[in-house]
This record gives sequence, C-alpha cells and structure tokens, in this order.
Amino acid sequence: MARDESGFSHPDEGTLSLEAIFHALSDPYRLRIVRALAASAVPMNCGDLSFGRPKSSMSHHFRILRAAGVLHTTSQGVEHMNSLRRDMLDRRFPGLMAAILGETGQSAAGDHPRRLTPA
Amino acid sequence: MARDESGFSHPDEGTLSLEAIFHALSDPYRLRIVRALAASAVPMNCGDLSFGRPKSSMSHHFRILRAAGVLHTTSQGVEHMNSLRRDMLDRRFPGLMAAILGETGQSAAGDHPRRLTPA
Repeated sequence: MARDESGFSHPDEGTLSLEAIFHALSDPYRLRIVRALAASAVPMNCGDLSFGRPKSSMSHHFRILRAAGVLHTTSQGVEHMNSLRRDMLDRRFPGLMAAILGETGQSAAGDHPRRLTPA
Repeated sequence: MARDESGFSHPDEGTLSLEAIFHALSDPYRLRIVRALAASAVPMNCGDLSFGRPKSSMSHHFRILRAAGVLHTTSQGVEHMNSLRRDMLDRRFPGLMAAILGETGQSAAGDHPRRLTPA
C-alpha cells in the first residue's frame, strides 16, 4: 500500500485480490465509473463521475474502487483526478477488464445502463 | 426465473446482471466453488464443495451463486448436484469466466488459494 503526495493510498500490484475487485465492481455506480474512465483518454475528476448522486455517496464508491486497486486518484489543486489502473489490472488478471468492458465479443457493457438501479 | 422439478430457482439468461455475478464472486469460498466446478468434468454435490465449512454457511454461498446465474443445482435422490452455467455465462459475458479462471494468460486463478481468508 503506497500513499502518494496527494494523500491517497493505493494497493501495490502484488496485493491485489480478485475478491476485492469483484466486490468493487458489484455496484452499478462503481461499474459506471469504471466504464466512464475506460472510455476516457484522460483522467476524470470526481464531479464528472457523480451521475447526479450525492458527493458523500460517490466518495464512498471511489474509496472502494481505489482500495481494490481498480482506480488511481491524485489531487490537482482542489480537484481529485481519477484514472483506471488498466495496465496493472491487465498484467495481474489478463482479459478481466476486457471482458467486463465488453471488448471480448458481443458487448457485456452496452446493455447495462438501462438496467441500472440506484445503489 | 425458472423453478425446476427439484425446487431450485435459476435466473433466465436475459435477466443476468454483471453486478450480481460480481457480488457472487466477491467471496473467497464462492470463488473456490466456481473454480472447483470449472475443473470438474461432472456435476459435484454440495458436500464435495464444502471445504470443511458448516453446511449452513455453504448453503448460503450456493444460494447466492445460483441466484446470480453462476451455477445450476438439481436434486438426485438426497444429493444436490451443482454445475457451472458456463455456456450461458460465456454467451452473455464473453471472456469473463475465462479471465476469472485464469485461462486467458498467466493464471489469475492459481495464485489465490494461498491467500484465502475465512468468509
């Protein structure tokens, strides 16, 4: 676990657990965050990933995703910028993110937003 | 949702949700059940998948896996026989089970039993 200069803690690659990643992805809003980050060429701030939900609720979701090793957060001024730890996840669990994001065949991602239910 | 003659309910393919599958897989014992079934050429009874845990605890895990559509249970006499719904999962979420079971590259499966913690 490394705490960077922004004060956010991120697990090291060797400590990632598939169970923790699955827990992180078992919530529809957290899955939306992951999909939005995967589709973005640049890091995104928390406000752009709030989907109209209260800040406190989304902070909880970001914390769980960060603790599982799914995303990386840094401070830029007053903003918290998030990016997917895709390279690390792909090294550690090959094919997992591709399958989750529907990159492997017919889309596993595309048919989910309509079934989104509040967390 | 279809209830078969054994009295077990199984979700239909069209109602599967990635979130429910991830919740089902977020527990180390449930992940062990899935890996054991994936490695077995034939259905396995609950006793052979109990890993020394109490029956009530494992019944709970089987129920969650069944409700998420991950496994199928039938009665054979007094035994409950379980199998992975692999074909359906592969159709619905291509590549997901392969990634979970470590079939996609270096093993995501092989290095987990030693980090297993009690549920």
